[in-house]
Amino acid sequence: MSYVFPPAPQASVAVDGTDDRLPVRRIFCVGRNYAAHAREMGKDPDRDPPFFFTKPADAVVDSGEVVAYPPETENFHYEAELVAVIGKGGKNISEEDSLSHVWGYAVGNDLTRRDLQLKAREQGRPWDWGKAFDRSAVIGPVFPVEKVGHPDKGSIKLTVNGEVKQDADLNELIWSVPEIISILSHSMTLQPGDLIMTGTPAGVGALVEGDTCVVEIEGLGKIETPIGKREA
Amino acid sequence: MSYVFPPAPQASVAVDGTDDRLPVRRIFCVGRNYAAHAREMGKDPDRDPPFFFTKPADAVVDSGEVVAYPPETENFHYEAELVAVIGKGGKNISEEDSLSHVWGYAVGNDLTRRDLQLKAREQGRPWDWGKAFDRSAVIGPVFPVEKVGHPDKGSIKLTVNGEVKQDADLNELIWSVPEIISILSHSMTLQPGDLIMTGTPAGVGALVEGDTCVVEIEGLGKIETPIGKREA
Repeated sequence: MSYVFPPAPQASVAVDGTDDRLPVRRIFCVGRNYAAHAREMGKDPDRDPPFFFTKPADAVVDSGEVVAYPPETENFHYEAELVAVIGKGGKNISEEDSLSHVWGYAVGNDLTRRDLQLKAREQGRPWDWGKAFDRSAVIGPVFPVEKVGHPDKGSIKLTVNGEVKQDADLNELIWSVPEIISILSHSMTLQPGDLIMTGTPAGVGALVEGDTCVVEIEGLGKIETPIGKREA
Repeated sequence: MSYVFPPAPQASVAVDGTDDRLPVRRIFCVGRNYAAHAREMGKDPDRDPPFFFTKPADAVVDSGEVVAYPPETENFHYEAELVAVIGKGGKNISEEDSLSHVWGYAVGNDLTRRDLQLKAREQGRPWDWGKAFDRSAVIGPVFPVEKVGHPDKGSIKLTVNGEVKQDADLNELIWSVPEIISILSHSMTLQPGDLIMTGTPAGVGALVEGDTCVVEIEGLGKIETPIGKREA
């Protein structure tokens, strides 16, 4: 057996304090997981089962990399998020067992073409064009559980050019990490390298060319994303 | 640099008549690309720009593999599709150049949890849970362009237990392969190994445990999928 052309480079994210990388398989994102953000998006927060969207693995971008203003949007948004990294696969995982499947945590920025997402929402169409475009998932260095435990409270904050735009606490998550993993694993077989972006707090807004967007989570450091010119 | 755990196995599809495999990077799917199918889904076919949803690369399944009835659905559907395989990447590709980016073509079956997709459509939520689940993309052996050219007409047919359910012609595609590639590449940077599932004709319907679903496209052979028991 051989490949008719070489496989694409393996998508990966950095591991804090080392030269190691963590291979990325899939990216699952939880929709509307902070009540105040659900309300700002015109929805009632509730305890209906959470819903998910996805990004392709190779949408990942390291902290510090420039993200060019993407095509086809005039309303390009940041979204600060806690990211859980699955290290051990499984299906039908119980809430009690779920944390043993997590390798570590990172700070993330779920970049969004909001105009395309909202249009899709109105039309009942897929969200992929609003969410799953090139370089749409900034993922900071991953901190292993052995160093940081399982953060379930602590500040999550996002600034644009130094001005605070999102400022919340991880204890406001509607669906906790153990609940999300258990629910996901009843629908999908989770695998090592699957990332879970756990949703964003209130305060989403637009980025423009030349902005610098920083996301910081207590205990997990900060990630920085300069927004470059729109490419031709 | 090393990986903290091994990368997942490379997703791949067979190449017709060889032991070679073709590495899969992403799977893009065109929504409603045959007029009669658009109508059966309660929509007017039109020439609005096409829309896309995605499946993860490792959703691919070879012809002949059993697909267990998936969890969380009571309305699991088949969808016969022509699949174009990108062999040369690019962005902002013109319609005129687009066919030079295609490595080959295959028969595909876009397996769908229809109830979850329709619920998402009603609620304005992402389609991923209806479309992007485990083993949701049956992709037959790929035929290189040098052998089969660029099929733009010819029978596309699907049977369940020998009974014809979908029977159309590739010349009914609303958006042609060159148009789709050009439009996609203005939104995403296409890469070798990206697959494009080009939409399904009218006649979609449900599969049950024990069914055998066969899709055949003139010149590209047939693929067969036995439906297994729902897993615990």
